[in-house]
Amino acid sequence: MYELGVVYRNIIRADRSSTDALAALGSATVHEAMGRVGLMKPYMRPIWPGAQVSGTAVTVLLHPGDNWMMHVVAEQIREGDIVVAAITAECSDGYFGDLLATSFQARGARALVIDAGVRDVRTLEQMKFPVWSKAISAKGTIKATLGSVNIAVVCAGALIHPGDAIVADDDGVVCVPRELVAKTLQAARAREANEGDKRAKLAAGVLGLDMYKMREPLAQAGLKYVD
Amino acid sequence: MYELGVVYRNIIRADRSSTDALAALGSATVHEAMGRVGLMKPYMRPIWPGAQVSGTAVTVLLHPGDNWMMHVVAEQIREGDIVVAAITAECSDGYFGDLLATSFQARGARALVIDAGVRDVRTLEQMKFPVWSKAISAKGTIKATLGSVNIAVVCAGALIHPGDAIVADDDGVVCVPRELVAKTLQAARAREANEGDKRAKLAAGVLGLDMYKMREPLAQAGLKYVD
Amino acid sequence: MYELGVVYRNIIRADRSSTDALAALGSATVHEAMGRVGLMKPYMRPIWPGAQVSGTAVTVLLHPGDNWMMHVVAEQIREGDIVVAAITAECSDGYFGDLLATSFQARGARALVIDAGVRDVRTLEQMKFPVWSKAISAKGTIKATLGSVNIAVVCAGALIHPGDAIVADDDGVVCVPRELVAKTLQAARAREANEGDKRAKLAAGVLGLDMYKMREPLAQAGLKYVD
Amino acid sequence: MYELGVVYRNIIRADRSSTDALAALGSATVHEAMGRVGLMKPYMRPIWPGAQVSGTAVTVLLHPGDNWMMHVVAEQIREGDIVVAAITAECSDGYFGDLLATSFQARGARALVIDAGVRDVRTLEQMKFPVWSKAISAKGTIKATLGSVNIAVVCAGALIHPGDAIVADDDGVVCVPRELVAKTLQAARAREANEGDKRAKLAAGVLGLDMYKMREPLAQAGLKYVD
Amino acid sequence: MYELGVVYRNIIRADRSSTDALAALGSATVHEAMGRVGLMKPYMRPIWPGAQVSGTAVTVLLHPGDNWMMHVVAEQIREGDIVVAAITAECSDGYFGDLLATSFQARGARALVIDAGVRDVRTLEQMKFPVWSKAISAKGTIKATLGSVNIAVVCAGALIHPGDAIVADDDGVVCVPRELVAKTLQAARAREANEGDKRAKLAAGVLGLDMYKMREPLAQAGLKYVD
Amino acid sequence: MYELGVVYRNIIRADRSSTDALAALGSATVHEAMGRVGLMKPYMRPIWPGAQVSGTAVTVLLHPGDNWMMHVVAEQIREGDIVVAAITAECSDGYFGDLLATSFQARGARALVIDAGVRDVRTLEQMKFPVWSKAISAKGTIKATLGSVNIAVVCAGALIHPGDAIVADDDGVVCVPRELVAKTLQAARAREANEGDKRAKLAAGVLGLDMYKMREPLAQAGLKYVD
Repeated sequence: MYELGVVYRNIIRADRSSTDALAALGSATVHEAMGRVGLMKPYMRPIWPGAQVSGTAVTVLLHPGDNWMMHVVAEQIREGDIVVAAITAECSDGYFGDLLATSFQARGARALVIDAGVRDVRTLEQMKFPVWSKAISAKGTIKATLGSVNIAVVCAGALIHPGDAIVADDDGVVCVPRELVAKTLQAARAREANEGDKRAKLAAGVLGLDMYKMREPLAQAGLKYVD
Repeated sequence: MYELGVVYRNIIRADRSSTDALAALGSATVHEAMGRVGLMKPYMRPIWPGAQVSGTAVTVLLHPGDNWMMHVVAEQIREGDIVVAAITAECSDGYFGDLLATSFQARGARALVIDAGVRDVRTLEQMKFPVWSKAISAKGTIKATLGSVNIAVVCAGALIHPGDAIVADDDGVVCVPRELVAKTLQAARAREANEGDKRAKLAAGVLGLDMYKMREPLAQAGLKYVD
Repeated sequence: MYELGVVYRNIIRADRSSTDALAALGSATVHEAMGRVGLMKPYMRPIWPGAQVSGTAVTVLLHPGDNWMMHVVAEQIREGDIVVAAITAECSDGYFGDLLATSFQARGARALVIDAGVRDVRTLEQMKFPVWSKAISAKGTIKATLGSVNIAVVCAGALIHPGDAIVADDDGVVCVPRELVAKTLQAARAREANEGDKRAKLAAGVLGLDMYKMREPLAQAGLKYVD
Repeated sequence: MYELGVVYRNIIRADRSSTDALAALGSATVHEAMGRVGLMKPYMRPIWPGAQVSGTAVTVLLHPGDNWMMHVVAEQIREGDIVVAAITAECSDGYFGDLLATSFQARGARALVIDAGVRDVRTLEQMKFPVWSKAISAKGTIKATLGSVNIAVVCAGALIHPGDAIVADDDGVVCVPRELVAKTLQAARAREANEGDKRAKLAAGVLGLDMYKMREPLAQAGLKYVD
Repeated sequence: MYELGVVYRNIIRADRSSTDALAALGSATVHEAMGRVGLMKPYMRPIWPGAQVSGTAVTVLLHPGDNWMMHVVAEQIREGDIVVAAITAECSDGYFGDLLATSFQARGARALVIDAGVRDVRTLEQMKFPVWSKAISAKGTIKATLGSVNIAVVCAGALIHPGDAIVADDDGVVCVPRELVAKTLQAARAREANEGDKRAKLAAGVLGLDMYKMREPLAQAGLKYVD
Repeated sequence: MYELGVVYRNIIRADRSSTDALAALGSATVHEAMGRVGLMKPYMRPIWPGAQVSGTAVTVLLHPGDNWMMHVVAEQIREGDIVVAAITAECSDGYFGDLLATSFQARGARALVIDAGVRDVRTLEQMKFPVWSKAISAKGTIKATLGSVNIAVVCAGALIHPGDAIVADDDGVVCVPRELVAKTLQAARAREANEGDKRAKLAAGVLGLDMYKMREPLAQAGLKYVD
């Protein structure tokens, strides 16, 4: 948050296989498994539907209207990373387009998460490069001011440390701190394990009221039925 | 609006066949037929495109961040209902996901209209369960506080009584009071009856200026043409 | 901006072939070629994805909740025009639906750009009539008050003169003043000319840092790498 | 909500002395006494600080950009009323200024609550006429379309029936249904009765944790202290 | 709008005495006298209440997060000017504080109108330097990119040419084109002339319904009274 | 961010005298001295004007609509602290009123900074207890769910560690990390040292263009003057 003009080259990334396994569970289940924290604000939306990814965060802090550090962060990307871009003030400019996406993809990035705008969105969809952003805007940026790479950043209300795991899909973007990835994966899998059984019951017409044994606590809380 | 902790079991639903017939007319035509009232605010958007439904409202009032009553309302759903969910304060949390959708669908619900967020949107689309909502969010909710079921609610700026007819499509969501359904259906059909003829004329290049005889009132209002 | 109740019939349109050639370049490239000005605010979004058009602006100024002048502007449309609609105050009502689209299309309009709402969006997509708007709303309008046609208007923060070129795609909407169209086309083509080469290099793993020779200016600005 | 072009002359107003007594309790206490319902959305703000009023609602439904019905509702005002103005769509125009305020004040109105804009705000403050509104705007309105007077309306998310009690201050605006005014007044007074005692204890350094006996439920919920 | 890096030194200012006379009439009356056009969006608010000014526009176009041109425009200010600042993209940074205000005031500026943020607002109020802005923000700006001075700009949705008259007060900001100042002053004075008489009548209890003879047109429009 | 249900009792607070000295410099100068980072978003506004404070952060993380932890944090306040309250999702409810303010004040708190709403604002102003918040709302909260006290939180886009220094005034709220307080104070004082001299020159009519020697870099950047 506070260092400008610094690039940290060596970051410790969350465990690869645990991080990769989070994608299939999805942001909602992972967010629940975290204890309902770590979620970015819901204004972060995918620029095309259907992508569901997880990866390790490489972070970049940029100034409004200035995407110079996007080229600096590109060099720090490794296979399996997701770039998380924060801005020092609110901005909806298009920081990222098809050329940068080509570079990011060539370096092994799985996605971009940016608290600002992007452009060339039709081409990005054709390239199957997923982006979660606050805006879509043709407005370009300049290259004049230094930010930083791989420092802790606040992106869309969530604190992201370099190396944390990121899980993103059509429901949103959640960050799992590096040291909690294994535990969160376990908790998320446990949540999902009995979902199939629940779904079958509900599809058969069993009510959540009965399946979750809610009738008594509801009555105790004072719920009244009127015919 | 004012009773908390109450579930009304017996509501009078709008006439089934009239209600069902409204879907084909669409929200814009029905809204016009109502005299341009009854529409929810335009921030209510479908989570997937193309659904066009009508049904009878079963209402639920929830507290921010608390979806307990969603399980209570599930039991009150009958074939052909649309659940209309209002919140006592502004909230974008994800109150509803694929498990609840499975239950609602099994009970016969045609759609959910909620002045808050939902999640598992990709699965909801695969299930073909339509939702109109204010937000999409992975953020889950707790189950701690009582609301009510089948009381009058204000949802996205519109007053909904249980049993009213709801019409929703890509243009928005409109509520037709139970006692006005037959009359509104008639008015909406009358509006639509001559649309085919108008469309053919306009497609042939006839101007609305001439077709609607607007030239004289425009001139009287003072419109001037400058060459 | 200041004349109400006037329709200018004879406007000078931007050069047809230059205007038409802008579509393929897209709003982001054209905006850059203009020196990063002329863009509408990013809240202007296409109602269906994938359209990419350019055309000459026919402008209309409307009052909130009143679409009377839409019928007046229809008569002024010529083949290759894009209608640009501004409102004298903020409004999200649905000023435009499938009937007006049929008329506009019959007159040769390529698209509508409107700083308000539209409706019948599913039908508009089936008709392949592109619209960029601030909102989608089933809310209809009245026909009571005069505005103007083919005066200069401010639409979504951009100044549009009748006859200017409009370029719109999934990234947004940009306006090119009539007298700058040829020069902008040239500049945009020059920008695009070497993009293929750059893309190939980036795809091969060359970094923008090296391709754009940024390492030295970054070091001069004080960028530090920490291992 | 659904009748346009109607003025109800005879409405049953909430009990005068109970209604008048609510002002001193304030919107927050009254809202709590209601069970935390009935509040307008927090975007409703006073145009000048410090006013604290209660009164009986006279309602008016207007169209966007059209204040014709403001003159119609003026005639229905009686001493002790508060005019509640709802709009059929979102609008920030200035529907009300010093001339209408002079008329409303002469008729006995205590305040205006409007889900839109007002103007002449400096003069309104000098007149000590309180207004709660969504916006301040110099934009004037036309007089062309009928709305209604004294029908049920939705204003800033709250349902208001004519004759209900309205309580408004710097914290917001709350509506108390006519039939609940006496009961709400009693509950609000009960809440306030022991506030003086609580305030004295808290000022002396007693903690809410102890005064409200929260330590045990917090421990049971799992709260842990770390030194 | 389209020239960057240019300062026009010689602009033709609206007639001084007519421009100065507009202040006393206020933004609402002037806006009506213009035919209800020329108003900036209502998000433009005074940073302190009570100022009411008019003056001739000196315009400046800035880039997001960059206030370099503020120093350039300072030199172009003459006694009686109001600086109107537009930004090429949305930005809420604090472009202007007490040092620039000291300079502007020394050059004869009467106010600043800026579609972005300002800071040092407490000091600005103490200096009695009026500002209308979109935001208040401590966030500073850099000095890196050229904009322009005294070109036509779009500020908060309104088109402003250098030399136009600006009228601003607690109700908002309106722009009167240079060539319309005399005519607008006349129309505004005519509007105001009979306001005193109207106010006296309304204060005496006469209804607008009668004073404006609205009863017959309301009846013709179909208004019904129900007892 | 990630621990729920924990209260850290022993935090290391920033140096008292340096922290206290920051208030007089104000948020804008401190933010500049930090290198233009650390600022909360500009939607955080004082509920009454004129307060200018600094203090050490005691943090609390709350759930939407639930203020239980406010009573827990009260016990952790020491003389000179400022309570910084973050919410796990967006919420505008009124978490804090005059009773809690009485308690906070008795414990030695100088202010509250909360990314949500507060109420009893008139009384808070009379008590001279400063609050910076996102909203004002009469809507009360429940006491049902555990959050945490004195963990790192994200408040209005800024990362706050317990013990950091907070500076807040009419321009906004800035956070200075504990370890940077002395250095920031020094830098801020240096910035301010020559402001008096600059102000005198500007007041005498000297231009920033000359005082900051901008004419040459502007010319080099290509600025052109047109007579």
